[in-house]
Amino acid sequence: MASTSPAGTAAGLVDLLTARLGTSGVLTDPDVMAAYSRDRLPLAPSGTPLAVALPSSTEEVQDVVRTCADAGVPVVPRGAGSGLCGGANALDGCVVLALTRMNRIVEVDAANRVAVVEPGVINADLRQAVSAHDLFYPPDPASYDFCTLGGNLATNAGGLCCVKYGVTSDSVLGLDVVLADGSLLRTGRRTVKGVAGYDLTKLFVGSEGTLGVITRATLALRPLPQAPGTLVASFPDTADAGTAVTRIVGEGLVPSLMEIMDATTVRAVERHLGTDLGSGDGGGTLLLCQSDAGGEAASRELAALERVCDESGAALVHATTDPAEGGLLMQARRSVHPAIESMGAQHMIDDVCVPRTRIAELIDGCARISEEVGLRIVVNGHAGDGNMHPTVIYDGDDEFARARTAFDAICELGLSLGGTVSGEHGIGKFKQDLLARELGPVGLRVHRDIRRALDPHGVFNPGSMFE
Amino acid sequence: MASTSPAGTAAGLVDLLTARLGTSGVLTDPDVMAAYSRDRLPLAPSGTPLAVALPSSTEEVQDVVRTCADAGVPVVPRGAGSGLCGGANALDGCVVLALTRMNRIVEVDAANRVAVVEPGVINADLRQAVSAHDLFYPPDPASYDFCTLGGNLATNAGGLCCVKYGVTSDSVLGLDVVLADGSLLRTGRRTVKGVAGYDLTKLFVGSEGTLGVITRATLALRPLPQAPGTLVASFPDTADAGTAVTRIVGEGLVPSLMEIMDATTVRAVERHLGTDLGSGDGGGTLLLCQSDAGGEAASRELAALERVCDESGAALVHATTDPAEGGLLMQARRSVHPAIESMGAQHMIDDVCVPRTRIAELIDGCARISEEVGLRIVVNGHAGDGNMHPTVIYDGDDEFARARTAFDAICELGLSLGGTVSGEHGIGKFKQDLLARELGPVGLRVHRDIRRALDPHGVFNPGSMFE
Repeated sequence: MASTSPAGTAAGLVDLLTARLGTSGVLTDPDVMAAYSRDRLPLAPSGTPLAVALPSSTEEVQDVVRTCADAGVPVVPRGAGSGLCGGANALDGCVVLALTRMNRIVEVDAANRVAVVEPGVINADLRQAVSAHDLFYPPDPASYDFCTLGGNLATNAGGLCCVKYGVTSDSVLGLDVVLADGSLLRTGRRTVKGVAGYDLTKLFVGSEGTLGVITRATLALRPLPQAPGTLVASFPDTADAGTAVTRIVGEGLVPSLMEIMDATTVRAVERHLGTDLGSGDGGGTLLLCQSDAGGEAASRELAALERVCDESGAALVHATTDPAEGGLLMQARRSVHPAIESMGAQHMIDDVCVPRTRIAELIDGCARISEEVGLRIVVNGHAGDGNMHPTVIYDGDDEFARARTAFDAICELGLSLGGTVSGEHGIGKFKQDLLARELGPVGLRVHRDIRRALDPHGVFNPGSMFE
Repeated sequence: MASTSPAGTAAGLVDLLTARLGTSGVLTDPDVMAAYSRDRLPLAPSGTPLAVALPSSTEEVQDVVRTCADAGVPVVPRGAGSGLCGGANALDGCVVLALTRMNRIVEVDAANRVAVVEPGVINADLRQAVSAHDLFYPPDPASYDFCTLGGNLATNAGGLCCVKYGVTSDSVLGLDVVLADGSLLRTGRRTVKGVAGYDLTKLFVGSEGTLGVITRATLALRPLPQAPGTLVASFPDTADAGTAVTRIVGEGLVPSLMEIMDATTVRAVERHLGTDLGSGDGGGTLLLCQSDAGGEAASRELAALERVCDESGAALVHATTDPAEGGLLMQARRSVHPAIESMGAQHMIDDVCVPRTRIAELIDGCARISEEVGLRIVVNGHAGDGNMHPTVIYDGDDEFARARTAFDAICELGLSLGGTVSGEHGIGKFKQDLLARELGPVGLRVHRDIRRALDPHGVFNPGSMFE
C-alpha cells in the first residue's frame, strides 16, 4: 500500500485519529499499546502498532478505517484479546482498532427473541441480560466471562453448548460491517428466516477481521433451557470412551453438553482441585454429559446416557439432578485450563475437529505423537461435536520446536481422520500453512479472490489467515 | 461475453457438448427444451436455450462449464424446476444445465449423522433413505416429493420444519462446487464444527445458481423426531391469532410446526376438501401447531399451546395425539396450494418474512391491499418463523398489472414491518428490483463485487438475482 495522503507520516496519522476520536480515544504509549498487541496464544508473531484506536461509535470506526486506508496503514481489529490463534495480534506500524468501548446492548426484543448488540459487549453480560427475559444466548467459549461478542463473531466462537445449540454463526441474524473504504454494509435481517441475496452475514462471521469491522450484530436468542442434570462416566480405556460417544450419537441422543478428558487431563484436574475424579478406581478417560431437556425427558435422557456408558465399559457412572453436585462436576471441566497452567510449563492448545466416531483414534494418535516428540500432550475437548483440544506441554525455547512439531502433527492427524485444523479457535497468524493445506489450491484462490473483492488494498489484518 | 473459440457457433457448441456427454446428454428439440426452460412461477421472463445439458458426473459438469465459458455462452443450472422465483428460467441462447441425472445418495454415515448426496436427489428420497437409519433431514419445502436437493441448496429452501429445525443451510456441512472456469472447489467439511477459512459453504447455499454449480453436498442429519401431536385453533379475529403467535414465541414454546391460514384460505381449503375447519362456527384464521417432543414433553407442550390459544381468544381449540387425526389436519395445510389453484384463476405466491410479532399486521395489510387493487389475496404461511405467503388471485392479462402491483405492495409492506422480500423462495428473475431495495447501494455493490470475483465473465445465470 502506498502512502500518498497527508496522513502519510506516523505523527500525521496519529494527529488525524486524535482529531476524530479525542486524546482518550487514541493510545500511543508503548507500554499501554503492548497490552493491545497480542491475544492469549503466546506463540504467534506480533508487531508494534503505530497507535491503538478506541472508537465509540460506528461513525468513528468508519473515520478510523478511512483515515488508515488513505494513509496505507493496516488496521487490526480486536476485542478483549481472548483469542487463541494470534488473529488480533498487531502488525508493525498498524493501527489496532479496539472495539471494547462499543459495549452497549442496544436492544433486547424478547417477543421476537432477538438482541441487538455492539461488538464490545462481554459474552457473559449478554447472557445475563437476556436471562432476565428467560432467554438464552448459547455460544459459551471458555473465556465467556471476559471475551467480547465482536471477537466471538470474528472467530465464529464455539464452546460447550455446540453439541445441541451450534456455534456463534447459528445465532447471528444480521450485521453492520464497516468495509475497507469506510462504507457501512448492513447484512442479513431481523427475521429468523430470509434468503434475499447472498448470505453475507455468515461470510463475515469467522472471517477473523480480514474482511471488515463488525460494529453491530442482531442475534437470535432461544428460550432459557431447564436446569441441567449431569452425568459423569470414567473409562479405563480411551477406546471405550470413544465407543460410548459413537453410540450416544448413533442412538440419537442429543445431550446439551458432552465433554471428554483423557487420563492425563483428569489427573491434572484432580491434582489442581484436590479432588477424586475416579482415576484411582481404575478410571481414566472421563466423559461429562448434561441434559437440559427438563423433567421426565431429562431423566429419560440421563438414563439412556448411563446405560450406554455402562454397556461401553465404564468403570464408574454417576448421574445427578442436584444442581450443586452438577456444578462441582462442571467445575472439573472448567478447571482444565488452570490445571494445565499449574503443570508449571508452557503449553500450546490445539483445536482440531474430527468426525465424532474418530475421537478415540485422535486421543491414541496424540499419545503416539507425545512419545515421538518426548513431550506430554493432554487431550480434552467437546466430544459431542468432535472438537478436541490436544495441548502440548513444553518448557522454554529448547522444547519449542518439538512442541510446534507435535502441534502440527496433531493437525495433520486431524486432517487424516477426516477433520479440520480448526474447530473453533481460528487460523490467525499461526496456522496459515495448515489452512492452505486444508483448503487446497482452488479453495485458497477463492479465499484470496473474495478478500481482494472486499478489501482490494489490504487494509484489514493483512497476512492473517492467509497471504 | 465474446465468442472467440471453435465453439463460437451454436452448432459448434452443441457438437462439443455432445462429444462430451453423448447424444442422450444433450437435448436440442424445442418442445423438449421447453420443459426445461422455466420453473413453477409463471410470471418471470424466460428465454429459449441453445441446448439442455444433462451431465452424469462432476467431471461432465466441469466439461460443460468450460465449454460454455470458452464459447461465451451463459449457463443456467437447474434441478426439477420446482422453484418459485424464475431463478432457473432459461435465457435466450444459454445452455440449461439440468442436474437431475446426478441423483445418487453417495453415502449415509449413520454413526456421524452425515449424508453425502448428488444434487439431483429428490428431497423425499433422501428423507426416506435416512429414516431407515432413524435419522431425519429436516428441510421440507412444499415440493419435497419432487424437488431436488440441488435446487433446495441453490435457493436455501425452507418448509414447515423451519420453526424448530432451521432452513437448508442449517443442514449443510460442505459442498463440491464447479466454478466459472471449470475448476472444482471443495467447501466446508464433514465435521459438525469447523472454522478453517471463510464460510464459503453458506455463501453458495442460496446463491441461486449465480456463483457456481453444486455437484455434491455433505449434509448434517438429526435423530428422527417422535411422532407429532397436533393442535388446531380457530380465531374469529386475525389480531387474536397474531397475539397467540406472539405469546407462543414469548413464552419460550418451540413447536415443531406452526402454520397460519387466514379466513379466505380456510374457506378455500374447506371447499376444496369438503370438510369443516371451523369457519362456520365463528372461526376464521386458523393456527395449526405440532409438537414432536414425544411423551410427557409433547403433552406438556400441546397443553401450553392450547392454554395460550384459549387465552388469546380462539373460538375453537382441539389437540390430538392420534396420528390419523393429526394427518387429516396436516392434509388441510398441505391442500392450501391445490385449494388456491381450484379457485379457478391464476395466482402469484408472495414470500415475505416478518418478525413474528408483526404477522397480524401483515395479514391486515394484505386485506387493505386487496381492497385497493380489487383482487382477492389469500394469506397463509409459516407463523413460527414469520414467513408468510400472501397469494394474489387474478384472471388473465387484464388483471396481471394489478396483481403485480399488489405483489410488490406486499413486499413493501413486509419491508416496512422490519421484514424481508424473500423468506424462502428467492429472488430469481422476478424480484431483482425488490432485492436492490432491501440490500441498499452498499449491499448491492458488495454482491456485485463477490459475484465478479467468482465469475468475472458472467457465465452463471447472468441477470438473475441482480444485474
